[in-house]
Amino acid sequence: MGELERIKKQILRQLVKKPSTFWELINYQDSHIVTFLQAIKDLLNEKLIIYEKPFFHINNNLDVPPYKNPGCLMCSPFTEDIFWKNILDKFLELVKDRPLPTSDFDQGFIKPEDTLKRTAFIYKRGDLEDSEIFILGDDDLISLSMALTKLPKRIVVVEIDERINKFIKEKAKEIRYENIEVYNYNVIYELPEELKGKFDIFVTDPVETEKGLKLFISRCISALKGKGSAGYMGFTHREASLRKWYDFEKFLLDSGFVITDILRDFTTYPEKENQWEDFYRTYRIMKEFDLDLPNVDWYKSCFIRFEVVEGPKILNIPMPKDLEELYFDEEAWATPLPSFLEKKEG
Amino acid sequence: MGELERIKKQILRQLVKKPSTFWELINYQDSHIVTFLQAIKDLLNEKLIIYEKPFFHINNNLDVPPYKNPGCLMCSPFTEDIFWKNILDKFLELVKDRPLPTSDFDQGFIKPEDTLKRTAFIYKRGDLEDSEIFILGDDDLISLSMALTKLPKRIVVVEIDERINKFIKEKAKEIRYENIEVYNYNVIYELPEELKGKFDIFVTDPVETEKGLKLFISRCISALKGKGSAGYMGFTHREASLRKWYDFEKFLLDSGFVITDILRDFTTYPEKENQWEDFYRTYRIMKEFDLDLPNVDWYKSCFIRFEVVEGPKILNIPMPKDLEELYFDEEAWATPLPSFLEKKEG
Repeated sequence: MGELERIKKQILRQLVKKPSTFWELINYQDSHIVTFLQAIKDLLNEKLIIYEKPFFHINNNLDVPPYKNPGCLMCSPFTEDIFWKNILDKFLELVKDRPLPTSDFDQGFIKPEDTLKRTAFIYKRGDLEDSEIFILGDDDLISLSMALTKLPKRIVVVEIDERINKFIKEKAKEIRYENIEVYNYNVIYELPEELKGKFDIFVTDPVETEKGLKLFISRCISALKGKGSAGYMGFTHREASLRKWYDFEKFLLDSGFVITDILRDFTTYPEKENQWEDFYRTYRIMKEFDLDLPNVDWYKSCFIRFEVVEGPKILNIPMPKDLEELYFDEEAWATPLPSFLEKKEG
Repeated sequence: MGELERIKKQILRQLVKKPSTFWELINYQDSHIVTFLQAIKDLLNEKLIIYEKPFFHINNNLDVPPYKNPGCLMCSPFTEDIFWKNILDKFLELVKDRPLPTSDFDQGFIKPEDTLKRTAFIYKRGDLEDSEIFILGDDDLISLSMALTKLPKRIVVVEIDERINKFIKEKAKEIRYENIEVYNYNVIYELPEELKGKFDIFVTDPVETEKGLKLFISRCISALKGKGSAGYMGFTHREASLRKWYDFEKFLLDSGFVITDILRDFTTYPEKENQWEDFYRTYRIMKEFDLDLPNVDWYKSCFIRFEVVEGPKILNIPMPKDLEELYFDEEAWATPLPSFLEKKEG
């Protein structure tokens, strides 16, 4: 939708709550003064807002959902506006009987609270309302948390695990949300033509091997519309070295993105709910050091946002030559061995 | 000091509080599993810690200051460990009679609480204790907030404003802190040879013109030791477009840094304390739109951390041809006209 449109949304949803000065408003949007002023001038020209110095007012006839403050997403999420607390309750209920991770797809979901934190952060950025959203891999079920807000224009999930696809479709029907589409999709294939260049944002939690990482993000990039579109992804320090972060950031910049946010350890993978005790015996870290199973949640990931400033370009990247190379490299020390590889090893 | 040393510090300061499992400890350090395990093995070999499965213990003879939790730096800083609350009180007292901003150096300080938040974030990363710290420009007086923690090995401030240099020296003497050095320094000149390649981290709040920005950071880079050294800086969306962010991130990566943290709107510039009402008449934004003076604090900056993965390289950059080009470009809409330029204009 472009940066300017995003800023206008951030302004309107604040202004519908109360008349505000230029300086008050600038605190509720993300952009440079020049873009902010342009957004203000556009809204005045379109007669969506009125200026009675020193206050801007929203046009009375305008029907805009007011901004819902999700609270501090780092330490006390969903403690401000009841809107978010209600969605959290519904989401927790909705995902209760979710499919459990299988080692065949290197799965593992984050805490449902953290999934909603991601949705709320996307909302804060103005990237949720009226957006067309592309999700590659959704064992976190973020599509459903977004659906519960009723704010996006369109949500498309592409996912390899039929169990998850079935689950999302059933639950979307249960909550009567119709703007969601689910595709069975394997990341080693190109994206279907009808999904290319159609989305404002993407969200993904990629595998973190050097080749897998770029493959995931490359597929996502091909789904974006262009300048002002944004990517969101989870990325860990646990299984990705700073050298890998560096290479990946270079890849992002070369693709035409600026990195706008890095939220360290924003999300946690709960040991108990994932029930992956049995996976540990195949983790490389357990073979390298004499360890008991974890007594606390320890696998965390950062949440990163990046925005297209030009292009985006689809770069040539080396393809993983098989599934082993998709899931494993020298840094994958807490990745389960898929059953088909385990058989091979045994 | 290198990434490994930093991780070892993060482990020891936690372990001195209580024996912990591998999985508990990993949550208190920043690195990849492989580096974390290496740090553990080193500490075992050096007999600084002991492993009695499943717990690691610190060697009884070891004198390490325990980790002091600064609380949530996004919404409720200094509410956990009293250590930080005490420092905040002392710091507020210390800076009461600070020099006020002058338009001649594009000054403006952040809230003292936010200066300490920066210090606490640097501490969380393991970059404060026993570190050699380089600060370019210090109207925020972060050097004094660091001095109050007594944790750094050496603090060097280079600053153009003699009033600030005098103030820092006086106050350092007042609190009997001796590991601080203050140099009178103008960024257009190369760094003195004795300061090159000597520091673990730098902190700066650069001017944000395209040329000025790179000049500031380039001088800082030349002060760093090498791999594992880190840079910290304030950077705004208010006066820097995403295109400028993009160019700057490219500059950072080309110099050999990976960006590890971006904390959006982490710091606020208080209108009242800065007493810069008089500057506004020279701001470009006031000429472009009919505005009253601000009724709220509105100028905010992000805090960014980046770490050397190779080099760092000192790139060739275009020098600003005069002071006007150092302070002004097309995006500087809230920068005061220095008196020497005002005279020229008038």
